[in-house]
Amino acid sequence: VSLAGADLAELDTPALLVDLDVLEANLAEMAAVAARAAVALRPHTKTHKSPEIARMQVAAGAAGITCAKLGEAEVMAGAGLDDLLVAFPLVGEAKLRRLGGLLERARVRVSLDSVEVAEGLGRLGRSLGRDLEVLVEVDTGLHRLGRPPGPATAELAAEIARVPGVEVAGLLTHAGHAYRAGSPEALRRVAEREVLDLVETAELCRRAGLELREVSVGSTPTARIGASVAGVTELRPGTYALNDATMVRLGVATEDRVAATVLATVVARPTAERFVVDAGSKSLSSDNMATGPGWVPVAGRPDLVLDFLSEEHGVGHRSGPGELRIGDRLRLVPSHACACVNLWDLAYGVRGGRVERELPVAARGKVA
Amino acid sequence: VSLAGADLAELDTPALLVDLDVLEANLAEMAAVAARAAVALRPHTKTHKSPEIARMQVAAGAAGITCAKLGEAEVMAGAGLDDLLVAFPLVGEAKLRRLGGLLERARVRVSLDSVEVAEGLGRLGRSLGRDLEVLVEVDTGLHRLGRPPGPATAELAAEIARVPGVEVAGLLTHAGHAYRAGSPEALRRVAEREVLDLVETAELCRRAGLELREVSVGSTPTARIGASVAGVTELRPGTYALNDATMVRLGVATEDRVAATVLATVVARPTAERFVVDAGSKSLSSDNMATGPGWVPVAGRPDLVLDFLSEEHGVGHRSGPGELRIGDRLRLVPSHACACVNLWDLAYGVRGGRVERELPVAARGKVA
Repeated sequence: VSLAGADLAELDTPALLVDLDVLEANLAEMAAVAARAAVALRPHTKTHKSPEIARMQVAAGAAGITCAKLGEAEVMAGAGLDDLLVAFPLVGEAKLRRLGGLLERARVRVSLDSVEVAEGLGRLGRSLGRDLEVLVEVDTGLHRLGRPPGPATAELAAEIARVPGVEVAGLLTHAGHAYRAGSPEALRRVAEREVLDLVETAELCRRAGLELREVSVGSTPTARIGASVAGVTELRPGTYALNDATMVRLGVATEDRVAATVLATVVARPTAERFVVDAGSKSLSSDNMATGPGWVPVAGRPDLVLDFLSEEHGVGHRSGPGELRIGDRLRLVPSHACACVNLWDLAYGVRGGRVERELPVAARGKVA
Repeated sequence: VSLAGADLAELDTPALLVDLDVLEANLAEMAAVAARAAVALRPHTKTHKSPEIARMQVAAGAAGITCAKLGEAEVMAGAGLDDLLVAFPLVGEAKLRRLGGLLERARVRVSLDSVEVAEGLGRLGRSLGRDLEVLVEVDTGLHRLGRPPGPATAELAAEIARVPGVEVAGLLTHAGHAYRAGSPEALRRVAEREVLDLVETAELCRRAGLELREVSVGSTPTARIGASVAGVTELRPGTYALNDATMVRLGVATEDRVAATVLATVVARPTAERFVVDAGSKSLSSDNMATGPGWVPVAGRPDLVLDFLSEEHGVGHRSGPGELRIGDRLRLVPSHACACVNLWDLAYGVRGGRVERELPVAARGKVA
């Protein structure tokens, strides 16, 4: 039974809401950032896992989309998205078979950081009679995938380029450490370092004879800064579509630009100060909970502070004089939208206090 | 396409595995604990969200099951489980309508900690022409739901008992703070306090004229201790079915009794020490990640240490001389089984290196 057209008061709780006005404004603004800088926008769909929102992103000007895993890309391709970057090293015969199937339906590029992974992709490419496009991932400070910028990456890119069946289309990085920046100033330093390092490394590769077309940078916190640096060709922000409390804390988004919230009901008032809502870590995720009270703000209620989540309970206290009764409804702002949305099968797209349409989180759980 | 009968090597990764020999041993052992103490076992199904495992628990001797939310109970009732405790305060007309539907299919008791919630349930009970059985939740130290043990709870229980349409069947507590106990000794103190407080409060209620039948204690860490205290009638452990790294750390389970693991593949070796696997916080959850390296052990590989998870990557380092190559497979031990399993649609029940059967995580995401 679809709840399209329902009043918010008719929704059972907890429920994941996406404010469509805010979502549309977020998509338009980032598309404008990319257009002004004349770089391609390839949003990361891990944030929303929704083919419908992905289509909105393409309609707003995105050149294609980025997916975290092959399973996510398969869902998106099934919904008609036809220009995909799978930003993950694909390892093993099962993955290569699936990639072969995906390549029949869409343009697919893959990122990697090793010759071993390139060799698997090269075998697939040769069996298909074409070169598979790959992006070489560079470690600009997250210390996850990739070699450091400079000669170490240039050597790796050259080695990969020698693997038959593979074409090195460019370099890619993700400055995930930007999320840990303590201030807007620290964030700017991280973002500039990320982009300059990547552009310089791309130049090094070109001087060594590689014809790199793509210099692709990721992350919502660094996207606006990265867009303006000469040499960048592609932006891959994800969180910007929905935003979250972390983006507000970093100064990357304002509160009125948070599109995703969890509607919850007060189910207990065990003491004069304490309250309990029906949304816990299985509705919001426990991401960033260790940073302490307030990591999940209550929209429009600065007098209410969440202290901790257990799986199905959110436990908080009143820090001001406002009323709060069992049955009251609150809107909780996720600390990390990507982790929150991944817990839900369905989001409600709302506008003007009503459900306008349901948004299936169709790629939820597609971790393989 | 079912993978029943497949060799583990045929599974794509990441994949959630449940060792059926270990699961069966865990279920039998806790059933024996309850039987020896002559208390009822009502396992919490939030851990596995699997109707099939719930049926195994009942077959092993459980009197019924506990569910975290109404949606979980609906899934379990739909699979034939017919004696349910919904350990959550149900608030709002939508929930009461659904509870009415559930009561047509199963015996259902509900826990609560307020007169307001009792009044809603009482209206439903009167409309059905029967008293709904409720358990009054007591705060034995978690500081989530409930009033403190002693007179505060005895007064609340008496008030709730006066609500027409509701019958106070007993008291309930959950010593969730036991998970934070720093040592087995601290754990024992928490567990004894939990149970003695609850039994004494039940006596207080009885002296005031309430005929309480049930004194129900929860949590895997405290269950074995609580079972042996006179006056306890029911145990509600959940995690014991699967166990996890936290239970091992607390001394509640040994490593060979962890039934749930995540099978992952090494996808990168960016430095001589660092490795990256294809399972991150969307496969394992980020629960307890802030406690630092080693919170997610690698089964059988003490030389490998996970340092952090991002959404789809697990990043670790080698602390010993063992070999590790791209394509190697590792089994990761979740820090928190309940949060991990809730990310998956399907677990593979394995025995002797093969998939014996698929276990749908049918109640995953049923947070409402």
